[in-house]
Amino acid sequence: MIKEGDTVQLSDGKNRFFLKVKKGEVFGTHRGNINHEDIIKAGFGGKVKTHKGHTFVILRPTLHDIIMFGIKRKTQIIYPKDSSYITLKLGITDGMKVLESGVGSGGLTIVMANAVKPSGKIYCFEKEEKYIKNAYENIKLAGLENYVEIKHQSLEEPLPENFFDAGFIDVREPWLYIENIKQSLKIGSPIGFLVPTTNQVTSTLESLKKHKFIDLEVVELLERHYKPVPERLRPEDRMVAHTGYLIFGRNS
Amino acid sequence: MIKEGDTVQLSDGKNRFFLKVKKGEVFGTHRGNINHEDIIKAGFGGKVKTHKGHTFVILRPTLHDIIMFGIKRKTQIIYPKDSSYITLKLGITDGMKVLESGVGSGGLTIVMANAVKPSGKIYCFEKEEKYIKNAYENIKLAGLENYVEIKHQSLEEPLPENFFDAGFIDVREPWLYIENIKQSLKIGSPIGFLVPTTNQVTSTLESLKKHKFIDLEVVELLERHYKPVPERLRPEDRMVAHTGYLIFGRNS
Amino acid sequence: MIKEGDTVQLSDGKNRFFLKVKKGEVFGTHRGNINHEDIIKAGFGGKVKTHKGHTFVILRPTLHDIIMFGIKRKTQIIYPKDSSYITLKLGITDGMKVLESGVGSGGLTIVMANAVKPSGKIYCFEKEEKYIKNAYENIKLAGLENYVEIKHQSLEEPLPENFFDAGFIDVREPWLYIENIKQSLKIGSPIGFLVPTTNQVTSTLESLKKHKFIDLEVVELLERHYKPVPERLRPEDRMVAHTGYLIFGRNS
Amino acid sequence: MIKEGDTVQLSDGKNRFFLKVKKGEVFGTHRGNINHEDIIKAGFGGKVKTHKGHTFVILRPTLHDIIMFGIKRKTQIIYPKDSSYITLKLGITDGMKVLESGVGSGGLTIVMANAVKPSGKIYCFEKEEKYIKNAYENIKLAGLENYVEIKHQSLEEPLPENFFDAGFIDVREPWLYIENIKQSLKIGSPIGFLVPTTNQVTSTLESLKKHKFIDLEVVELLERHYKPVPERLRPEDRMVAHTGYLIFGRNS
Repeated sequence: MIKEGDTVQLSDGKNRFFLKVKKGEVFGTHRGNINHEDIIKAGFGGKVKTHKGHTFVILRPTLHDIIMFGIKRKTQIIYPKDSSYITLKLGITDGMKVLESGVGSGGLTIVMANAVKPSGKIYCFEKEEKYIKNAYENIKLAGLENYVEIKHQSLEEPLPENFFDAGFIDVREPWLYIENIKQSLKIGSPIGFLVPTTNQVTSTLESLKKHKFIDLEVVELLERHYKPVPERLRPEDRMVAHTGYLIFGRNS
Repeated sequence: MIKEGDTVQLSDGKNRFFLKVKKGEVFGTHRGNINHEDIIKAGFGGKVKTHKGHTFVILRPTLHDIIMFGIKRKTQIIYPKDSSYITLKLGITDGMKVLESGVGSGGLTIVMANAVKPSGKIYCFEKEEKYIKNAYENIKLAGLENYVEIKHQSLEEPLPENFFDAGFIDVREPWLYIENIKQSLKIGSPIGFLVPTTNQVTSTLESLKKHKFIDLEVVELLERHYKPVPERLRPEDRMVAHTGYLIFGRNS
Repeated sequence: MIKEGDTVQLSDGKNRFFLKVKKGEVFGTHRGNINHEDIIKAGFGGKVKTHKGHTFVILRPTLHDIIMFGIKRKTQIIYPKDSSYITLKLGITDGMKVLESGVGSGGLTIVMANAVKPSGKIYCFEKEEKYIKNAYENIKLAGLENYVEIKHQSLEEPLPENFFDAGFIDVREPWLYIENIKQSLKIGSPIGFLVPTTNQVTSTLESLKKHKFIDLEVVELLERHYKPVPERLRPEDRMVAHTGYLIFGRNS
Repeated sequence: MIKEGDTVQLSDGKNRFFLKVKKGEVFGTHRGNINHEDIIKAGFGGKVKTHKGHTFVILRPTLHDIIMFGIKRKTQIIYPKDSSYITLKLGITDGMKVLESGVGSGGLTIVMANAVKPSGKIYCFEKEEKYIKNAYENIKLAGLENYVEIKHQSLEEPLPENFFDAGFIDVREPWLYIENIKQSLKIGSPIGFLVPTTNQVTSTLESLKKHKFIDLEVVELLERHYKPVPERLRPEDRMVAHTGYLIFGRNS
């Protein structure tokens, strides 16, 4: 059930580790070492012991697990509540060619890449070289590197014409690049943006209106967690109050 | 670019129509009739005229469009903010066998079916026969009927043993069926629930704890829309304040 | 217990009426007429019958009741969640002289007037004559007319110098008047603003910074109601999502 | 302008100190000592220097300042967003006799005491002796000790009959005391509760229904702060997500 190259999650209730399984290798934890072959033998849902006798359960990681606990963050990530909504809202599905910029830590890239497989691709344009290697490692951890192409390029530089089926832009001043983005999107293609401030929302909307994008929407999602105690059910004391404003439109 | 069998969206800025294209057929609107062949000729992003001269833009509908505007609702639907989050949180992906009950109007089914294609399947158990036909029509509109099997069956009846990779339950009293559900889930499989009241959250959590489900979480998502007016940016006056509490866990 | 001039609330579970009691008068409802003297005789918590035999309970109205159900609204009102918070945040208390502009329908005026009595006063500056009479009637209904002075005047016109202990401004372009407002506030006095759009927040903050106001804060309050059903406790389906952004600062 | 006995707030932009002014006394800070007489001389809005030359501005503290920054917390406090709303919702005003239990750290007591002055009183019933002294010190800091009476007593013990005009209950199991509370409230009097869990809401509502309280409501207030930066306006990253559910009703 577990094949070489699969990503697995080891959990002991307190710690979670993510690794890609490879015969003959050994995975080290602070509670002892584990042979990859033991993981393959036990299978998803099975248990494995370290050489020190500590037990881990082997779980098939969800993309949510990988994004929240597996990837290395070198930037603010786009949270699952947003990345899943964006992917559905933009209609990302098998076979689509999707523009993304920047790649950041790859959290959204992973969700969208999983949605375009097997025949589509996410084209990421990232101007900061320092983020690219880390994002690529994260995408590989999710096993999705065949559906992503990362280019070290700013949105100021030429983009292919009339090429993309959808786009998502998470850069500081998206309004500077709307014209370039527009010519690279097919007519009717949906596009989205994430910006943290209201001033950026205003500037982005102005540019989208000027460039005849239609069906404009601005939305934010708030995620409220509860303590899962049946006899004392209540919201957590604190919550993430803001991750960003999402802006959507369609090229026309 | 548009093939027979594709679902297209016709939009004139005010009305949206969804149809599956079939050569030789005619689509009637209150603004006049349209030949399907004209739609195929114009392609996505193109324009088409009715026999009365009214113009519609032809758009590739996103799943979000189909769920919010295309499907017929015979029940309360699971909103895109929730269905996209559920799908990511449960790790629904290519090849998985997923338990769903009930099917309702098929809103969540569509999102999950799109995620398991091409080699997985959503198995829906719906005890109310009256919802099944409608749900099936909605799933067909989204072009996903090959990835869904709807059974007219309650969760009280036997479920296949150790069979499902994930599950999502949206019924009135989920705690009555946890034992049956548990034996049908593989070890380590994630499961989710949607219930509208806090009393149901309590009862579901109690049952999940009793049956040794782990990693329990309770969360709700709030969706706040803004008027997309750059010079007068502000939230909408009113919002949907509650769709349901989401409960997640893993079989252990 | 009920004296002439008191405001009482008549409730039959469905309808609420507010009236100021005056011996010899008769109050007409669609369920029949009631003698004011019967109300005085029954007292708060008592019951009274119309000449048609319909029963009303006599309640002492809270300011919340009066604002939400008693006053006539000619403008958007400031909701109790906001007016109570504003009053506490500005430290409105006995003896203070408070600047308010505009008066609107008097909802906030009523809450602040109740807080400055017996020796303080709310000075309202309202440029729209059409609102003044209505606001005054509403304030009289709450029995607070002795603690309010309404002037038909815009904030462009001279304000008394170094006079006010606190201020609250709810006008379209508050930033135009900050200089005039500043000279009329004592040093150290708190001031607040309500504006509906983010663009107005930005312009107001810019002006406050320019004029050396300190301790700036921006806050919004969201009010979520639940259906009060013990065995099916859940939030209401819809809620008011936005009433306005509150801005606070202190003159320095 | 500043009289002996007044509470003043000293602020240097980073630190806030609260003290009651008394001629001849000296107030010590980590930035040096200040003579109370210098404070009286400078007046509200004035400045005062420590013997080390550090400058503080002298501000008239709002009740909000005192509750958030001045009082010593020995318990979870009721936040101003809630205490101001409760006070308005219960119609607390001059002359009322108000039941409160427990007193906690006195945050709500202070707001309600300010509202009943000069002729009303808050009667606090607190079973934990350890909180009483601290609450009393806090209420004295706010200058409101003449309008509060704290009794070391549980809600199980007898309460005066048909005595209170309103009540607010913040104890762990309010449903145990509803009968005792009811007989002590005048007919028609509003009552409120704060409880942190949904299970407590359910039990409280059940008891209120059983004892014929009317006009039941359940509400929660969410307070969202923004960074007050005009050119980069955005919500704070994190917020308090839950302080408690508020329940309101009227004795009938």
